[in-house]
Amino acid sequence: MFVTADPASHDALREAAAAVADAVVRAAALPGPRSALTPAELAAAVAAVDPLPEEGAPLERVLEDVAPILAGGVRLGDRRCVAHLHPAPLIAAAAAELAVGVTNQSQDAFDASPAGTFVEDALVTRLAQLHGFPAGSGVMTMGGTASNLLGLLLARDRAGEDVRRKGLAGQDWRIVASEAAHDSVRRSAALLGLGTDAVIGVRTDDTGAIDVDALDAIDAHAIAIVGTAGTTDLGAIDPLDALADQARERGAWFHVDAAVGSGLTLSDRHRGRLAGIERADSVTADLHKLWWMPFGASALLVPDVAALRAVHHASDYLNRPEDEAEGQLNLVGRSLDTSRRFDALKVLIALRTTGRKRLGEMVDAVLALTQHAGEAVRRRDQLELVAPPSTVTVAFRHRGGDDVNTRIHRALFASGTAVIGRTRVGGSVALKLTLLNPTMTSADVDEVLDLVVSAGASPAA
Amino acid sequence: MFVTADPASHDALREAAAAVADAVVRAAALPGPRSALTPAELAAAVAAVDPLPEEGAPLERVLEDVAPILAGGVRLGDRRCVAHLHPAPLIAAAAAELAVGVTNQSQDAFDASPAGTFVEDALVTRLAQLHGFPAGSGVMTMGGTASNLLGLLLARDRAGEDVRRKGLAGQDWRIVASEAAHDSVRRSAALLGLGTDAVIGVRTDDTGAIDVDALDAIDAHAIAIVGTAGTTDLGAIDPLDALADQARERGAWFHVDAAVGSGLTLSDRHRGRLAGIERADSVTADLHKLWWMPFGASALLVPDVAALRAVHHASDYLNRPEDEAEGQLNLVGRSLDTSRRFDALKVLIALRTTGRKRLGEMVDAVLALTQHAGEAVRRRDQLELVAPPSTVTVAFRHRGGDDVNTRIHRALFASGTAVIGRTRVGGSVALKLTLLNPTMTSADVDEVLDLVVSAGASPAA
Repeated sequence: MFVTADPASHDALREAAAAVADAVVRAAALPGPRSALTPAELAAAVAAVDPLPEEGAPLERVLEDVAPILAGGVRLGDRRCVAHLHPAPLIAAAAAELAVGVTNQSQDAFDASPAGTFVEDALVTRLAQLHGFPAGSGVMTMGGTASNLLGLLLARDRAGEDVRRKGLAGQDWRIVASEAAHDSVRRSAALLGLGTDAVIGVRTDDTGAIDVDALDAIDAHAIAIVGTAGTTDLGAIDPLDALADQARERGAWFHVDAAVGSGLTLSDRHRGRLAGIERADSVTADLHKLWWMPFGASALLVPDVAALRAVHHASDYLNRPEDEAEGQLNLVGRSLDTSRRFDALKVLIALRTTGRKRLGEMVDAVLALTQHAGEAVRRRDQLELVAPPSTVTVAFRHRGGDDVNTRIHRALFASGTAVIGRTRVGGSVALKLTLLNPTMTSADVDEVLDLVVSAGASPAA
Repeated sequence: MFVTADPASHDALREAAAAVADAVVRAAALPGPRSALTPAELAAAVAAVDPLPEEGAPLERVLEDVAPILAGGVRLGDRRCVAHLHPAPLIAAAAAELAVGVTNQSQDAFDASPAGTFVEDALVTRLAQLHGFPAGSGVMTMGGTASNLLGLLLARDRAGEDVRRKGLAGQDWRIVASEAAHDSVRRSAALLGLGTDAVIGVRTDDTGAIDVDALDAIDAHAIAIVGTAGTTDLGAIDPLDALADQARERGAWFHVDAAVGSGLTLSDRHRGRLAGIERADSVTADLHKLWWMPFGASALLVPDVAALRAVHHASDYLNRPEDEAEGQLNLVGRSLDTSRRFDALKVLIALRTTGRKRLGEMVDAVLALTQHAGEAVRRRDQLELVAPPSTVTVAFRHRGGDDVNTRIHRALFASGTAVIGRTRVGGSVALKLTLLNPTMTSADVDEVLDLVVSAGASPAA
């Protein structure tokens, strides 16, 4: 039932892991990026699997029962699965999830993760260095949304006196970010009690980066300026140095959402594009994007860990000061979470297996592939670029208009032929490829675009 | 590198999973609940493992490198590891983490988790039914802290007009909870911009449950009343029906933090103790506690999924209404998160493997064991109970006073003999056993208490 010192439990774990691996690869062997099942068919397949039967069953049998569920997912390893910003994860990282799960350490308290606590600290310290904070540190979160929330919370709580204790009282505080900043900026403002109206969206230039002149003209009490290093649709990187200047002039917190762009720190060729990030007060880095980790592996990085004291709270049962005085470290003091997975372990294992150089080459490969994709769009008369690609996304349109673009996206998805992105830019429907697979070739990209063109030529259903 | 349709990648996954399983069981085979390494020694062992070397290395080699890290954790399967509210997880659930990691579905958008979206919906729907919401549903979160935050956010945003958009303006809104409510209630109030001062802590009775008369006497604008079903230290269950009455009278949201108590819904014998939970507006249920799942597997349950519209936001690239009209479901519309693991898969696999009856028996077993532990404390002259045990925790003290209790806890932890809990109740240090292991016997509990007594008899170091 549980893994203990008993060798029988070790055999049980080995068998269970092998059975799950077999089930996973059976689904991975299916052709294409997804099945052609409709939502209703998928819902029916799921409904046939009672989540809580009275009696249990052998794992092998259960894995047969859930085979339609595994078969009904998107297959990120397929070269026609290019919709979103999460990659097929490194095998070493995915396999290490087993260790995270079995050991079930909790990163809140030293006595719930004695070694793991130091591993996470070492990891975020190293990440902070990579992002330009030589004496920095941070904390892991489950995603970029949570990391952005924490960064903006730090901004809010330093903007006034005793905000944490007294709450908000209708202050005129504003968060300034580009129109293309991630949704989580607005959602964080709502959550933090500032309200979505507190977010000022600054217009972007043709590449999707923030227009600094427009920002400069804003007359408001900005408590935070958010720079985005890799926007969701266009992959644009805001001019971080100019934003840092603006933040300094205004006395505002400077948060950089590098959920996407963080991966560029791995690359000898591209890391210079993040210049200015070292002037940030907080940085969001998602290791489940351009670092090829499975979810959730985000981090909020700060130049000085003391900044995180703003979320510290004393707990009688978790972080006792007298124990910390003897060298214990309790990460609950840096976090908005309490119990938390030891995700740092899978990251550590996968980074050591892969190495910085190879990861950097992978980053270089997908950025080059994206440039190729931009060219390939330009070469097709039926298509047009929304903007020149900046990092790992290519937004483009079929020239047939919104309805045709919507139809193309739906037809490819429904048939299971290709899973591409669909969004709106400037009010009009756009299609999007997100290229995170360094084993994809230019020919693979061309094939996806040819599928788009073909689907655009098919009559409406 | 990635799992694709290529059979070579399937072999790579199988080998990696087997290697990780081997590494995990090597650490699990070590004696005792943890090593006797000091924090400084653990930190040094971790510091010897560079998280980001330039060059990669074979996984087998990396697993050797990280062996001291796996060996340096707490071993939850050991019968002397009884500190916190997270169990050794079910092997089926832990093994299923492999499937969660490899497939890397994201629960925010249908096209990022077509089948998984329906699985999570089916799971939270079933959980809602179990908690007394026949037409209910919910959403998964990474932990009880996040679930409580979401419940309290719903309370906040319905208390005024357009809070989400306009933010807070110094309203006199209060959250009422017992003094023994989880820390996350206060931390949520801080995060939500209400401030920790907005939380009124109501005194508890001798069992640790909220004193309803004291609550009744509170004259404040309560927007939420929080009931706790299973407090952290004493395991107490608040009188939920009486709290539901209070909430109704005051027009307040009724949130039940059943992070611990949720497991009682599995038990034919004990589920009646949650009477009143069916009147809640939102319920926190942690499946990584008394359901024996690994982190993170919490849920926020609501009687009507429409309640979660309060956090809905429209995203051009994730949840397109025209696609939802055709049967797609995008869980980002219910969640404070964006990208999110398919944790529902491991829960589904483990619940089907184990079955409701056996899980209920496990719940019964640990509650009985806890009652035994209470008796066993009473039988030892050197020890005294802080309160009669209610669910799965026994808080007690050595009669020697704070210093002796602190010394006992530290000595057991430092020597790696036993990992027990330490907290403060009523201002004084208390020790705590958290009994989540249904394979533990009364004799095991007696042994731990004997270790406590012996450590108390040893002279101070």
